[in-house]
Amino acid sequence: MAGNSYGKLFKLTTFGESHGVAIGGVIDGCPSGLKLDFEEIQNELDRRKPGQSKIVTQRKESDLVEFYSGIFEGVTTGTPIGFVIKNTNQKPKDYSHIKDVYRPSHADYTYEKKYGIRDYRGGGRSSARETATRVVAGAIAKQFLSNIKINAFTSSVGEIFIDKPYQELDFSKTESNVIRCPDEATAAKMIAKVEEIKKQGDTIGGTVTCVIQNVPVGLGEPVFDKLHAELGKAMLSINAVKGFEYGSGFCGAKMKGSEHNDLFNVNGTTKTNLSGGIQGGISNGMDIYFRVAFKPVATVLQKQEALNSSGELVEMQGKGRHDPCVVPRAVPIVEAMAALVLADFTLLRRQETQNW
Amino acid sequence: MAGNSYGKLFKLTTFGESHGVAIGGVIDGCPSGLKLDFEEIQNELDRRKPGQSKIVTQRKESDLVEFYSGIFEGVTTGTPIGFVIKNTNQKPKDYSHIKDVYRPSHADYTYEKKYGIRDYRGGGRSSARETATRVVAGAIAKQFLSNIKINAFTSSVGEIFIDKPYQELDFSKTESNVIRCPDEATAAKMIAKVEEIKKQGDTIGGTVTCVIQNVPVGLGEPVFDKLHAELGKAMLSINAVKGFEYGSGFCGAKMKGSEHNDLFNVNGTTKTNLSGGIQGGISNGMDIYFRVAFKPVATVLQKQEALNSSGELVEMQGKGRHDPCVVPRAVPIVEAMAALVLADFTLLRRQETQNW
Amino acid sequence: MAGNSYGKLFKLTTFGESHGVAIGGVIDGCPSGLKLDFEEIQNELDRRKPGQSKIVTQRKESDLVEFYSGIFEGVTTGTPIGFVIKNTNQKPKDYSHIKDVYRPSHADYTYEKKYGIRDYRGGGRSSARETATRVVAGAIAKQFLSNIKINAFTSSVGEIFIDKPYQELDFSKTESNVIRCPDEATAAKMIAKVEEIKKQGDTIGGTVTCVIQNVPVGLGEPVFDKLHAELGKAMLSINAVKGFEYGSGFCGAKMKGSEHNDLFNVNGTTKTNLSGGIQGGISNGMDIYFRVAFKPVATVLQKQEALNSSGELVEMQGKGRHDPCVVPRAVPIVEAMAALVLADFTLLRRQETQNW
Amino acid sequence: MAGNSYGKLFKLTTFGESHGVAIGGVIDGCPSGLKLDFEEIQNELDRRKPGQSKIVTQRKESDLVEFYSGIFEGVTTGTPIGFVIKNTNQKPKDYSHIKDVYRPSHADYTYEKKYGIRDYRGGGRSSARETATRVVAGAIAKQFLSNIKINAFTSSVGEIFIDKPYQELDFSKTESNVIRCPDEATAAKMIAKVEEIKKQGDTIGGTVTCVIQNVPVGLGEPVFDKLHAELGKAMLSINAVKGFEYGSGFCGAKMKGSEHNDLFNVNGTTKTNLSGGIQGGISNGMDIYFRVAFKPVATVLQKQEALNSSGELVEMQGKGRHDPCVVPRAVPIVEAMAALVLADFTLLRRQETQNW
Repeated sequence: MAGNSYGKLFKLTTFGESHGVAIGGVIDGCPSGLKLDFEEIQNELDRRKPGQSKIVTQRKESDLVEFYSGIFEGVTTGTPIGFVIKNTNQKPKDYSHIKDVYRPSHADYTYEKKYGIRDYRGGGRSSARETATRVVAGAIAKQFLSNIKINAFTSSVGEIFIDKPYQELDFSKTESNVIRCPDEATAAKMIAKVEEIKKQGDTIGGTVTCVIQNVPVGLGEPVFDKLHAELGKAMLSINAVKGFEYGSGFCGAKMKGSEHNDLFNVNGTTKTNLSGGIQGGISNGMDIYFRVAFKPVATVLQKQEALNSSGELVEMQGKGRHDPCVVPRAVPIVEAMAALVLADFTLLRRQETQNW
Repeated sequence: MAGNSYGKLFKLTTFGESHGVAIGGVIDGCPSGLKLDFEEIQNELDRRKPGQSKIVTQRKESDLVEFYSGIFEGVTTGTPIGFVIKNTNQKPKDYSHIKDVYRPSHADYTYEKKYGIRDYRGGGRSSARETATRVVAGAIAKQFLSNIKINAFTSSVGEIFIDKPYQELDFSKTESNVIRCPDEATAAKMIAKVEEIKKQGDTIGGTVTCVIQNVPVGLGEPVFDKLHAELGKAMLSINAVKGFEYGSGFCGAKMKGSEHNDLFNVNGTTKTNLSGGIQGGISNGMDIYFRVAFKPVATVLQKQEALNSSGELVEMQGKGRHDPCVVPRAVPIVEAMAALVLADFTLLRRQETQNW
Repeated sequence: MAGNSYGKLFKLTTFGESHGVAIGGVIDGCPSGLKLDFEEIQNELDRRKPGQSKIVTQRKESDLVEFYSGIFEGVTTGTPIGFVIKNTNQKPKDYSHIKDVYRPSHADYTYEKKYGIRDYRGGGRSSARETATRVVAGAIAKQFLSNIKINAFTSSVGEIFIDKPYQELDFSKTESNVIRCPDEATAAKMIAKVEEIKKQGDTIGGTVTCVIQNVPVGLGEPVFDKLHAELGKAMLSINAVKGFEYGSGFCGAKMKGSEHNDLFNVNGTTKTNLSGGIQGGISNGMDIYFRVAFKPVATVLQKQEALNSSGELVEMQGKGRHDPCVVPRAVPIVEAMAALVLADFTLLRRQETQNW
Repeated sequence: MAGNSYGKLFKLTTFGESHGVAIGGVIDGCPSGLKLDFEEIQNELDRRKPGQSKIVTQRKESDLVEFYSGIFEGVTTGTPIGFVIKNTNQKPKDYSHIKDVYRPSHADYTYEKKYGIRDYRGGGRSSARETATRVVAGAIAKQFLSNIKINAFTSSVGEIFIDKPYQELDFSKTESNVIRCPDEATAAKMIAKVEEIKKQGDTIGGTVTCVIQNVPVGLGEPVFDKLHAELGKAMLSINAVKGFEYGSGFCGAKMKGSEHNDLFNVNGTTKTNLSGGIQGGISNGMDIYFRVAFKPVATVLQKQEALNSSGELVEMQGKGRHDPCVVPRAVPIVEAMAALVLADFTLLRRQETQNW
């Protein structure tokens, strides 16, 4: 209920504050018999970790995951997988200035009013540090899914967009640049933009697009738990996300039915895919694709007015080591959440017909 | 699991196919002691019902709700509220032509592949008729919330948009025209557009904007069940929805942090509200507003190719009585789902501190 | 949360008060493709219904179930099965005398204090009438399980017990007498006892034993959701139940380990079965058996003191048409709940290994 | 789904195998603002830990709990409480003899068949070591409940029973002897019995009784989640439990209604309490009491036949350090689970009426 779990059958429960002892989680429901590639899991964490390039926060955290249970001789046993990532580079002093201050467009004020108490150090539970635990679980979910291919990438930074359909992109190039944009010319412009913004002590928003291929027909539940509704919730649960659209998305709202309908081929595939691979909340076997909007990081290294707990406006300046643009580090998080959604629906799929 | 329930503490479970005996639901967790206004519940149903105006489907269904339990002498008792809406105007013959045919951009194909069987009459469970049960539950949730004001309206049809911020609109005018747009000049253009589209046997998409006012600080759970993540899921679960954005939304992804941050007033309100009333997944007391994209209705009254169960492409033409634009009827559904989300978080809010 | 649902994947949600319009429920998660035997469902309801013999309540209710959804041409479609049983024989006047009175050992007082309001007619939601909806869902669960055999029977009434192990009983004789005891000599004594008690205007308790055969190895989840823990909860949720034991039960607590252990045969079966077919919360393929204790019905047709809402003790006498012994009508309810537990774990079982 | 969580609003999720790196858990939903007494938490763990006396297993494990999150300056913050207990005294070699052997009346066989793989060391996940995590969460739940008093004690060992009603016992004496029986004369007999059994290399069963006092009226949900149904499930989920009864229990099944009914006093209390403090699944303010049956520990230090994975019967002898009687160490576990049940229902209680 308190919102720290995701999934029904493939279920992740997480804990941890940014500057506490550790963050971690429990994956309950991962099927037994899955041989894990631990290097790959750590690799996913490294894609998210701070300090990985010049255009992300320069905090240095190694983000090493330790598994405590649920795995025997490298293979999942069907029992819960407990894991922990120690917080090794806490600098709580960096945050003493916000003990009694609510920063604008942060969660300081709402946590304080909701709970009557908050761990103010580094944003505590509201810090995006929490997403490292999602990446661990998502990496395992990806290995469980195996055949399904999930590729996210940076599709825009500020006003700079990739101007090609995703079908013309080579996803193997996403990791070849620090902004994680598979179109190299656009990537260069995006990186230049982030560097410029960083110099100004400012931050900038962007979008991540995710393409999911080789999805079997039949994933997703009708009515409330439609496949795209769960994908939407999963994405909107990531820090700084302001919007989600799939298939034709907001553009689709401008179209006519005669233009929008995806006509069939004889094998059940469709000639176009404005549907985004989902009909009636259920995958139809075509590519699923969606786009996620991230607002600019709220911590800017410029002077801003904040509110203190005595109800006074005080001038403050962001300190610490922050991201000028969250989008490149968000790419593996988007993939991780997509993997968790698909793993859950894959397990749900197994009990839907009498003669499974 | 099978996706026919929404909510955790204020929980709706629904059943029913478009052309079966009845649709209905169970509301479990509605607090006791709530005196219900039954006229108001029926009024919400009437806002959604077919045949209400010239620009919606001309099916005639009275959509009368009957309550079977959970209410004693007009007051909720804390036990589950069971209710039923009989299907009075089924014309299954209208659908015999699709028995073995999968219509493009409908759920016929995915249901068949998922379950191995489908009630093809009127789309069965995938029909938007199911949303009538949401409106019943949402109407009760609204009465439970009482102080919170939820106002949705048609904000665009095709390329026709309201060109004012919501603060300049008079929500009392939303019901004064058949398209449910509170800006009368824009409403007239929208209606003309829908009539034109209807004549062509075509359909058109649009957007609904929803504004929620008087929300107390503290609703929403951090991490996975953020308030906007649940709102997003709830909206994306409505038939034909392709996108969701709140606050600055996709525009926010183009902005800089220095522009996007909402500075505080001394009373805890903010000078701007790009956040959309939510910080860190928790309401901050400012207006919540979001926008929902609806694709054009897939059933067009023009000839189109469809796939039959023998794997042949066959020409078909939409029959029956369909909506040229789903948006005006979607307005009360958006409000209903928003009410369900808020009712659920309001109940969750009650157990979060030791000294409630 | 509010406790009107049972099961996770094969999920029943119920509604309805004893003297409201109707009781009913929604079964969500029943796999598609199951051809239903409706006569058999009604037959199970008839085993539970009032008025079926001289030793149960003489209320006459036909308890006809109507299905509203989820079934197409006699086969389940995978969508929720909504059903309703109309309350045809309400005599609310029979209950006007308890409007302001809390009967001893009933739920009148606790409902009033919990909710601040109650539907006093016939006990409202606390009436065992609610169990009819369980029998409907259990009958469908039984058909889903098909190979698994569930046989409950009356094992004691007051001090009269069957003095044989269940292996010596012929379950086909359970329905041959009105007390539902497969041992005919004992059945005769039980019936005589109930008739004697009825003449006194009194009531008497008893136990139901349930034997489940042909259970595959592997049902049940370790730790909190052990198979016997769920069976226990399911049984304890039936009105009037005071205790649950399985396998060696309370007798096992007096034994030594060297006596209690069940030694293996080479095929994985065990020579004895004090375990009751469950090891570590998981079925081991042997017979599951358990015993459920029912207290005597609280409504006696003798004068008793009750409390009224003004805090006065008042003399009252049970009226209406009540059961002198609830046990024979409880037999099908025990079977229904066992079927629901097993159906749920059968579906859960499908996602536990990587190579299902 | 996979059964490693308990509770809905006050929710514990656990992980860990007996001889893995660590066991631990996440408590999600503990209200904020609760000042924790850490000494008291450790004290509860010490009541459960091995090696505490001569009549329990002589394994030495310090069972020190480390908290990783959810607590700031000693006070709960409303965010999830992650905790870990390291496994410091693993002797996996003690278990190499059971790598390919299924011990009688253990979970070896069922885990292997269910998951196709098992961590055989010390029983892995099926080991009662897992209950240490329940004791941590239960200790926090007790502090949350504060006014409610939960006292469990050993009520029988083999055939030796306390022969007094609980009202005549002084619970402050429970901890004064190693068997945890508040009646000192009976305690002495029980201890002598366990010592005798231990010398024989055998084990013995027993029962734990639990009394809960100062419970407010109104806890528990009607229908499926009755207070006693959840208590029953919680107790039956503890390793080695075979039965549960509350109030009059199995004796109640022999009684007449005229004897069994609890007549009211004018203040709403009852003159007798055969109901065990619960009416219709809801607490009525009287003492709740129940009894839990524990079978004898299956590991005996005598020769027994076991089955190996090749389908052969092999002679084996229990090794390692095992409990001759699990009951004294089960007492704090019973209390912990009772506390978790009550904490959950206390939070659920907060949203049941409109004017909470």
